[in-house]
Amino acid sequence: MNPILEAQLNHRSIRSYTDKPIDATLLHELIRHAQGAASSSFIQAYSIIRVNNKTSRQTIASVAGGQHWVKSAAEFLIICADLRRVEMACVNQELGALEGNTEHFISATVDAALMAQNLMLGAESEGLGAVFIGGIRNDPEKVSELLDLPDQVYPVFGLCLGWPDAIPELKPRLPVDVILHDESYDKDRTASDIAAYDEQIEHYYKERGSNQRSSNWSEQTAKAVQKKKREHMLEFLQKQGFVKC
Amino acid sequence: MNPILEAQLNHRSIRSYTDKPIDATLLHELIRHAQGAASSSFIQAYSIIRVNNKTSRQTIASVAGGQHWVKSAAEFLIICADLRRVEMACVNQELGALEGNTEHFISATVDAALMAQNLMLGAESEGLGAVFIGGIRNDPEKVSELLDLPDQVYPVFGLCLGWPDAIPELKPRLPVDVILHDESYDKDRTASDIAAYDEQIEHYYKERGSNQRSSNWSEQTAKAVQKKKREHMLEFLQKQGFVKC
Repeated sequence: MNPILEAQLNHRSIRSYTDKPIDATLLHELIRHAQGAASSSFIQAYSIIRVNNKTSRQTIASVAGGQHWVKSAAEFLIICADLRRVEMACVNQELGALEGNTEHFISATVDAALMAQNLMLGAESEGLGAVFIGGIRNDPEKVSELLDLPDQVYPVFGLCLGWPDAIPELKPRLPVDVILHDESYDKDRTASDIAAYDEQIEHYYKERGSNQRSSNWSEQTAKAVQKKKREHMLEFLQKQGFVKC
Repeated sequence: MNPILEAQLNHRSIRSYTDKPIDATLLHELIRHAQGAASSSFIQAYSIIRVNNKTSRQTIASVAGGQHWVKSAAEFLIICADLRRVEMACVNQELGALEGNTEHFISATVDAALMAQNLMLGAESEGLGAVFIGGIRNDPEKVSELLDLPDQVYPVFGLCLGWPDAIPELKPRLPVDVILHDESYDKDRTASDIAAYDEQIEHYYKERGSNQRSSNWSEQTAKAVQKKKREHMLEFLQKQGFVKC
């Protein structure tokens, strides 16, 4: 297995870090390399806000539901989808401003995620640990005010980076045969395959080193999506200039 | 530079391939490793449709605006955001169906993109060339019908994979200093930095080996977003069960 595939398989979310800082040059280089990711029509519709201020970190940790690793991580970044530069280019070219098309929202969100996945894997390749923080979307308005995000920019998720203090076990993913379909979507396949995966995950939750529980994938994820509806999201996005039409 | 960072920096979209097929085991392994990517609440909200049928490839190439590499690629995959499995888990757990919350749409779209970036980088690590095909969103309805995509599933983008026949030059990305902000979004920074980047890209377009032109980043991207509004997108997504509230 080559080192890139090995790194992909070995990813786990790291939430516990040593006190060692991350060299500013390393952080800069990781971002520069992450930007190598493909971008829809080369719009590169993302920005990163590096948050070091203790009060800001505290606020964001609270927004994210008390995720204290937001405070303890050596670096904390907010990954934003950012159409503002493109919007400015449109106006400067006298082509008219963006109108909040859902399509552009998708392009920008995907652009941000592609770059962020590179950033996470790149950080891991240098021995760092990382975890994405979707919890900032609990109160994206507050986060946007804190970071002074302008129109056409929204915070997609956070990213904690630090030198790992503890390495949790690997969590088994859905089998390839569940997610890969030939020629068209096979609707009949899912139910029985999920049952087998649920057994596997139940075993994982029971046997893992810490935070053991009696549950499975279906139960966990069904509860998670019920709790995380974030009903403010559409209105917030529209206020920031996205998903208007 | 470690091999992972090097691979990230060396990414270019490859649209020209040899006739050599991709071993089925390799494709399976690339997907399995790509699934190592983080997933919001571990929902793993994606599916991949592998399209080999010649007529389907032809249809999709046309939808994408005549991108003939969709036909000539050794493998062509459609990356879908897929909340159907989670929806089934909700119903089975008697927790009620999903309601089309925009938040879940974001989670699923990001999940799909994170996995897809791993898949692209992993493919490149084995010597393959790849390009994402956002053009399938020109007519997502037609693509969804062709692939028989059910409710709660939508095609985010396509992915061509093949052994490279030609390697284009690297396209310079936005400087890190343009996209990275300290503590809060620096609105004043953008205009002058973009002007410098425009000059760099103008030079790149003039000097590159093929398809030379006189243009710059601002002009290119402003035109691209005007052309790609895909005004059907919101209605299509709502029909598939997304972005309803």
